[in-house]
Amino acid sequence: MQHLQKLVIEAIETSQFPETPTNLYDPIRYILTLGGKRVRPVLTLMAAELFGMQEMEEIIPAAKAVEFFHNFSLIHDDLMDQAPLRRGKTTVHEKWDANIAILSGDGLLVKAYEEISKCNPVYLPATLRILSKVAMEVCEGQQLDMDYESRGSLLMEDYLEMIRLKTSVLLGGALQLGAILSGANEQQQQLIYDFGENVGLAFQLQDDILDAYGDPDTFGKIVGGDIIINKKTFLLVKLMEVIAPEDVPMMQHLLHATVEAVPTKVEDMLKLYDKYQVRKSADELKDVYTQRAFEKMSALDVPKERKEALLLLANNLLVRQQ
Amino acid sequence: MQHLQKLVIEAIETSQFPETPTNLYDPIRYILTLGGKRVRPVLTLMAAELFGMQEMEEIIPAAKAVEFFHNFSLIHDDLMDQAPLRRGKTTVHEKWDANIAILSGDGLLVKAYEEISKCNPVYLPATLRILSKVAMEVCEGQQLDMDYESRGSLLMEDYLEMIRLKTSVLLGGALQLGAILSGANEQQQQLIYDFGENVGLAFQLQDDILDAYGDPDTFGKIVGGDIIINKKTFLLVKLMEVIAPEDVPMMQHLLHATVEAVPTKVEDMLKLYDKYQVRKSADELKDVYTQRAFEKMSALDVPKERKEALLLLANNLLVRQQ
Repeated sequence: MQHLQKLVIEAIETSQFPETPTNLYDPIRYILTLGGKRVRPVLTLMAAELFGMQEMEEIIPAAKAVEFFHNFSLIHDDLMDQAPLRRGKTTVHEKWDANIAILSGDGLLVKAYEEISKCNPVYLPATLRILSKVAMEVCEGQQLDMDYESRGSLLMEDYLEMIRLKTSVLLGGALQLGAILSGANEQQQQLIYDFGENVGLAFQLQDDILDAYGDPDTFGKIVGGDIIINKKTFLLVKLMEVIAPEDVPMMQHLLHATVEAVPTKVEDMLKLYDKYQVRKSADELKDVYTQRAFEKMSALDVPKERKEALLLLANNLLVRQQ
Repeated sequence: MQHLQKLVIEAIETSQFPETPTNLYDPIRYILTLGGKRVRPVLTLMAAELFGMQEMEEIIPAAKAVEFFHNFSLIHDDLMDQAPLRRGKTTVHEKWDANIAILSGDGLLVKAYEEISKCNPVYLPATLRILSKVAMEVCEGQQLDMDYESRGSLLMEDYLEMIRLKTSVLLGGALQLGAILSGANEQQQQLIYDFGENVGLAFQLQDDILDAYGDPDTFGKIVGGDIIINKKTFLLVKLMEVIAPEDVPMMQHLLHATVEAVPTKVEDMLKLYDKYQVRKSADELKDVYTQRAFEKMSALDVPKERKEALLLLANNLLVRQQ
C-alpha cells in the first residue's frame, strides 16, 4: 500500500494549475497540500491492483479525480459548516473569504472531471457515471446533514442513510473506479463497491464511538467533542430512540446546556449513554458492517493473495485506537 | 430556430430530478423554470444543424448540459454578487439561503456533466474537454470580475479578457459542442467557436452601451443602472483610459457619490462619456467583433443556406434595440 500512497501523493502534490487568477488557484493549491492519508485515491489504485492492473499510470487520473472531488467537498462543506480549521490549518473561507471558497471549490470540481476525462476512453462512460452518481449522493448527504441539524429528533434509518451518502459512497466509488479501469465486470464492480461502502459505514460508526469513548492520549481530538456541540451521532440518535420517559428531561437539559454552563455535560451525557448501552448497539452495528464488508471481499473472484492489501487496510482503519 | 428553441425548452422543463432532499432539488427545479430565451443550448442544436446533423435527439443532452452549467453559474454568481433578483424573480440564496445556493449549484454542475456523459461516446473525450475548458474559464472570469471590483482602475485589455471569459467562451463552447457531436473536424470546430466568442464579445459591448444609451421604453432595465453602481463597463474603463487630468476630479467625485446624494450622477457621467466619445469607441469595437464573427462564419465549409439561421440569430442579438 505504501508505494501506491507515495505514487498518489506525488501525483497530487505535483499537479499543475495556472498561476492566475491567484484567488482562484491558490486556494486549490493550498487545500491539496494540506496532506492527509489520501485514503480515497489510494483505494482507487488498490482496487486496480486487486483486479490485476499493472499500469498504475492509467489509473492515476481517476485517483486524482477522487481526491480533487473530495477536496472540493471539503472546501464547500467547511464553508457551509463555518468550520475554522481543517487538518489543523485555517480553512479556505477563513484564510480567504466565502466567495473565494465557493469559486475555488467549483473550480476543483471541474478539475476532478477534467482528470477523469484523461482515463482510458473505452471506460469513460462508466467512470463518468460513477463519479457523477457519487457526487450527487455526497451533495444529498450534505443537504440531509444540514436539514437534520435543525431538527429535534432523527430516525436511526435517516441517520444511517445520511452517513452512507455523506461519507461511505465515496469510498465505494473510489474502489469501483479502479475496478472499472481494470476491466472488472459489473458484478465484481458491485462487490468491491459494497466492500467500500460497508467499510465506510463501519468507519463512521467507529468515529462516533471514539469521539465519546476514545483514549484522550491517542484520539487527537477532544474526547466528547460531539457531545459538546450536540452533534447527531449514532450514540445520540440511539439514545433518543430508546430513552425512557423519565430520563428525557435530563437529556433535554443537557442538549440545551453549553459546557460552560454545565461543566459536567460530557460526563452526564456519557452516563445516559451507559445506562442505555448505546455504545454496545454501536459496536454491534459496526461489527455487522465490518462483517458484511469482509463477506463482499471474499465473494470477489480474484486470487486470495491480491486481496490481502485491502483487507489489511480495512483492518487498520477499523481497529484504530480501540 | 424556433423549432429548436421549442425542443430545448421542452427538454429542460421536463427534466426529472429526485423529489428529496427537497432543499437540494427544489432550487434546481426552480432556477430551470425561470425561463429565458435558452440561447446557449439553442446554439448547440443550431451548430449541429449547421454541420448537417439531423438527429437532434443525439444533441439534446449536450444542449441540456450547457443550460445546466449556465444555471449553476447563475446560482453561484448571484450568491457571490448578493443579487436579489434573477429574471425578475427572487434568487436562490434569497428564496432559500446561502448554503442551499452553494449546494444546489454544485448539484447542477454535476448534473451538467451527467448530461454530457449521455452523448455519443465516440465524442465523449472531446465534449468533456470543451465543457471543462469552458467551465474553468467561466470560473476564472468570475474571479477576475470579483478581483477587479475592489480596484480603482482597470486596463482595457484586462476588462476585455474578463468579459471574454465570463460570458463569451460559453457561447463559443455551446456551438463547438454541437459541432463536435456532428462530426465536424477541428478546424471547423475552431471557426464556429470563434464565431460564438466574437458574437459574445460584441453582445457584451452592446449590453454596456445599451445600459447607458438604451431607449428607456424598450430597454427593460433602468437606463444608467451600471453608472449608478459604478459597474466596470467598457464605457467606464475607456473613460478612465482617455480622460484628461482636469476632468479626473469630476469623475472621481461621481464615482464616490451615491445617486441619492447626487441625483444628476447618471447624466453627469454621461456628459463625460460624451465629451470623450467613449460610446464611439464601444461602437467601433463592437463592429470589429461583429465583423470578425461574420468572417469566421463565411470561412466555414458548409452550404451557404445552412448558415442563414445562425447569421439571423447573430443579427437579432446584435441589432437589438438600437
